[in-house]
Amino acid sequence: MDIAAILDDIGAAMARAPDRGRVASYIPELAGVDPGRFGMAVALPDGRMFSTGDAAAAFSIQSISKVFTLALALGRMGDQFWTRVGREPSGQAFNSILQLEHEGGIPRNPFINAGAIATTDAALAGHAPREFLGELLRFIRTAAGDESIHINEKVAASEQATGDLNRSLAYFMAAHGNMVNPVEQTLGAYFHQCAVEMSCIQLAKAALFLTGTEGAPRLVSPARRRRINAMMMLCGHYDASGDFAYRVGLPGKSGVGGGIMVVAPAKAGIAVWSPGLNAQGNSKLGTDAVEMFARATGWSVFD
Amino acid sequence: MDIAAILDDIGAAMARAPDRGRVASYIPELAGVDPGRFGMAVALPDGRMFSTGDAAAAFSIQSISKVFTLALALGRMGDQFWTRVGREPSGQAFNSILQLEHEGGIPRNPFINAGAIATTDAALAGHAPREFLGELLRFIRTAAGDESIHINEKVAASEQATGDLNRSLAYFMAAHGNMVNPVEQTLGAYFHQCAVEMSCIQLAKAALFLTGTEGAPRLVSPARRRRINAMMMLCGHYDASGDFAYRVGLPGKSGVGGGIMVVAPAKAGIAVWSPGLNAQGNSKLGTDAVEMFARATGWSVFD
Amino acid sequence: MDIAAILDDIGAAMARAPDRGRVASYIPELAGVDPGRFGMAVALPDGRMFSTGDAAAAFSIQSISKVFTLALALGRMGDQFWTRVGREPSGQAFNSILQLEHEGGIPRNPFINAGAIATTDAALAGHAPREFLGELLRFIRTAAGDESIHINEKVAASEQATGDLNRSLAYFMAAHGNMVNPVEQTLGAYFHQCAVEMSCIQLAKAALFLTGTEGAPRLVSPARRRRINAMMMLCGHYDASGDFAYRVGLPGKSGVGGGIMVVAPAKAGIAVWSPGLNAQGNSKLGTDAVEMFARATGWSVFD
Amino acid sequence: MDIAAILDDIGAAMARAPDRGRVASYIPELAGVDPGRFGMAVALPDGRMFSTGDAAAAFSIQSISKVFTLALALGRMGDQFWTRVGREPSGQAFNSILQLEHEGGIPRNPFINAGAIATTDAALAGHAPREFLGELLRFIRTAAGDESIHINEKVAASEQATGDLNRSLAYFMAAHGNMVNPVEQTLGAYFHQCAVEMSCIQLAKAALFLTGTEGAPRLVSPARRRRINAMMMLCGHYDASGDFAYRVGLPGKSGVGGGIMVVAPAKAGIAVWSPGLNAQGNSKLGTDAVEMFARATGWSVFD
Repeated sequence: MDIAAILDDIGAAMARAPDRGRVASYIPELAGVDPGRFGMAVALPDGRMFSTGDAAAAFSIQSISKVFTLALALGRMGDQFWTRVGREPSGQAFNSILQLEHEGGIPRNPFINAGAIATTDAALAGHAPREFLGELLRFIRTAAGDESIHINEKVAASEQATGDLNRSLAYFMAAHGNMVNPVEQTLGAYFHQCAVEMSCIQLAKAALFLTGTEGAPRLVSPARRRRINAMMMLCGHYDASGDFAYRVGLPGKSGVGGGIMVVAPAKAGIAVWSPGLNAQGNSKLGTDAVEMFARATGWSVFD
Repeated sequence: MDIAAILDDIGAAMARAPDRGRVASYIPELAGVDPGRFGMAVALPDGRMFSTGDAAAAFSIQSISKVFTLALALGRMGDQFWTRVGREPSGQAFNSILQLEHEGGIPRNPFINAGAIATTDAALAGHAPREFLGELLRFIRTAAGDESIHINEKVAASEQATGDLNRSLAYFMAAHGNMVNPVEQTLGAYFHQCAVEMSCIQLAKAALFLTGTEGAPRLVSPARRRRINAMMMLCGHYDASGDFAYRVGLPGKSGVGGGIMVVAPAKAGIAVWSPGLNAQGNSKLGTDAVEMFARATGWSVFD
Repeated sequence: MDIAAILDDIGAAMARAPDRGRVASYIPELAGVDPGRFGMAVALPDGRMFSTGDAAAAFSIQSISKVFTLALALGRMGDQFWTRVGREPSGQAFNSILQLEHEGGIPRNPFINAGAIATTDAALAGHAPREFLGELLRFIRTAAGDESIHINEKVAASEQATGDLNRSLAYFMAAHGNMVNPVEQTLGAYFHQCAVEMSCIQLAKAALFLTGTEGAPRLVSPARRRRINAMMMLCGHYDASGDFAYRVGLPGKSGVGGGIMVVAPAKAGIAVWSPGLNAQGNSKLGTDAVEMFARATGWSVFD
Repeated sequence: MDIAAILDDIGAAMARAPDRGRVASYIPELAGVDPGRFGMAVALPDGRMFSTGDAAAAFSIQSISKVFTLALALGRMGDQFWTRVGREPSGQAFNSILQLEHEGGIPRNPFINAGAIATTDAALAGHAPREFLGELLRFIRTAAGDESIHINEKVAASEQATGDLNRSLAYFMAAHGNMVNPVEQTLGAYFHQCAVEMSCIQLAKAALFLTGTEGAPRLVSPARRRRINAMMMLCGHYDASGDFAYRVGLPGKSGVGGGIMVVAPAKAGIAVWSPGLNAQGNSKLGTDAVEMFARATGWSVFD
């Protein structure tokens, strides 16, 4: 299989795409990103890396960070974690508060906003935000094999400044006894975690720990790995997770910065980036590109 | 891998299970089933069949039939089908009407009740219920390689007699222009489809067409096969689909009769039956048994 | 107080109104009504009648009929009636099914569609639809002192033909055990009840039994009268009941045909008709006219 | 009419009541109140005051304060106020966040928690919380003709300490641009406003400005007075407003401290206090007592 050629084709097709979606506009650091950018990378377990376009450009990983925090929180709490957060798709927008009210302050899954805040709160427990963020960066840097990965403080500050909806979600959970740390402390950690910057190349490599392949860093147990993949498959694209499963057939997690991290179990780590989003808040061209890739390679967990 | 031994262990463990869930009670034909029964079967593509317990006993497949009808409806309409039915998890109970109202009469996916009724309506189009049911039986019999599979008319009549909630869902969709056939006609077909009876052995074999293996009947295209598997993974267990994906990691579809059909892509068709249900309406021991099986075999799409 | 002059002013103002709302279009009998029509009538307990515009023209009273059916159902069941129907505003559209699901098939109040169907079902109990409709007509004719009031069979037939949403509501309640009669029988009665035709003059006079004045027909007890008024004040204009209470300050009940029946306790029965509706499904000019009238007379229950 | 005798009867009946409801327990200052207490007072416009039981005992007026703040906010903004807050019953619990999400951060009415916070925010505009609270106290003291009315700082501090759900509501509105002042500033004012303490005697007198009678302090215009009464009638008892209208037939506003302020237009100001609450969060015996009173006097706006 000629992955390089497949990526070239995808890069060319995406360069021609007339509708590139809409770049997130709630903070200036995202709003200012050029919608014309596109990058994709595929990391094989044997160390080979294929890429196209802006694959080396750093972008804000945003919600993709939730995968790493989930791994940390599960490491901290084990299956007890699921008393605080559910593991079902929400059938609602990523920032909806409805089900929190119907379900007593227990968020539906770790990837919608409320669930991710609760996950950060769980991962924090007993540590200062600074310590947690250090641990998170260590985890990501180990996964990606790259010590240069860092948090963009300006993005974190902007998240903090525009975070009233997340604040509402967090106080709602606090009111239901589902916050262990002071709300502003957890939110501070959460806003920083979303501001991690990575390139497609770094992200594709970081995804390898979820492929179960030899040579990939062994950051979680096999059972946990499968389960994180399951969560990504079921809930990784908010209320378009079904669509992604249908079109792509691989577990993935998107971020509002336009990135998507995809896991091809036993095969490869994949990352794509294009800042324009579709109606559900996932990268428009990113989704299209991964669909093309899955079709060209025939890779699908459903095969 | 000694599948026979694994099944024996599972059968023994299930025989000892203290809490067997609650048998569905809305119709006498289901209410009267002995909660002590348990069967499981695994069909390999090479023709070998393994089983334990009541694997040869016929039971009402109920919602498992929705997988076969989805295949028929997709065959009839192709991707146009998705203008009538969504493909996202609902985040609601299987019989909820809430999202129908919020989303203009378009059900969330083909496996919740409203979506299944719309799917039957789509599969019916242009045919009498009798013809559709004939086609459905031919499909199932071909998949299972067993001409004896039939519909239990008494069950169908009971479904019809207690079907007011489904009637409500169907008229709601009709009010929004999302029913092609007269409501009672579609419902008649739907109630009969739910009343198909199969054994675990038949159902395990019938699941093979979704495994993409040589020798399995080629009833749908590879792309469609993957997509049906994706729908089962995302929505096959109603509002416990995330839990099933997390615990089992294989696409499956449950029915209120206590059956679950599971697909291990490239490996096997699996079926389990135990009539007692858990809180989400899925077979309690059935889920436990499939989880044990997945753990013992290491089979998971996320690996 | 010169009621005749007030009505003249209102009639003149309404004739000049640039935005007359949108006429209901779901059945041809309503869709075909001239949006330019406007009538209003005020019936005093001493027998005097004041009117303006098309006050003698008959129109479809539609949901206004729910007030009369509520009186009949309360007569039949007394306070037991409230085990089947709530008495709180719904905070939802008149035809919403959401709260039925959240609240076990008990509609919120007798004036939203679901509640009105349950009310008709309660009023029916033990009688054929024909008998119920006879009784209803007798009630209305006695209240209005006019034997000519009748049901428009063509409207009833159209309601029946387009009534799938009401059918959905009714079957939903049936599924929860909140229908006593066969669904189609209750719906048949309901569709006919909505098709009663009255003029503003007849309706203003019919409202007198709720004013508690001497000379008005004594059709319900004083306590029941106050309570029916309370229901009209709280729920009489669907999800614009608060707005009506705020602007008008008198109990009233609207219908999709463009009529509103208003009760000025101790003072007068009032009716207005203008077929164009506002966004909440209430007569646009009708509401404006009653607001003008309340302001000019100073009549308000809150004074 | 012998109001003194009626109150005596009510006091005696309430002393015998076996089920006194449940005292609010979310802050110690409310949780510690003796459920056996009961007081009621009726203030006539001519200056006469009737009372029974603990009518002179001060209690926390809590949400009753929302009536006074609404008067202030309307004074500040006029009808512009209604661009920020709706005037429809919510059909939900007093502290629900659901409709905020469905309706873009605009609370349904000024008396549910979210709406009351927005109302305080509107009343605050351009002033420090201290100034607003001074103005509120002046308003209440003028209405009650009693300069001793004050805020219980300990209660305010407890509200602040347990106010995460209100914080969630406020941040949700802030995220939708429906907060003018910093959230914590508005909440500080809100928590203090809820901590005003009054006795039934003070509260009955304070209600007179809404009766439209001679001699009552003229704090709002007649039109505004009617409208505030309308809001109390429609929304004054949260999701039991319909029940209160049905049983009592007079506008009223309840508070979680067990007080209810009731307006008998043109007749009297009424206040009742009993700390035990019913399922909807309104004083159980308070509601019963006012119902008895309305029945005995025949007072009802629907007559």
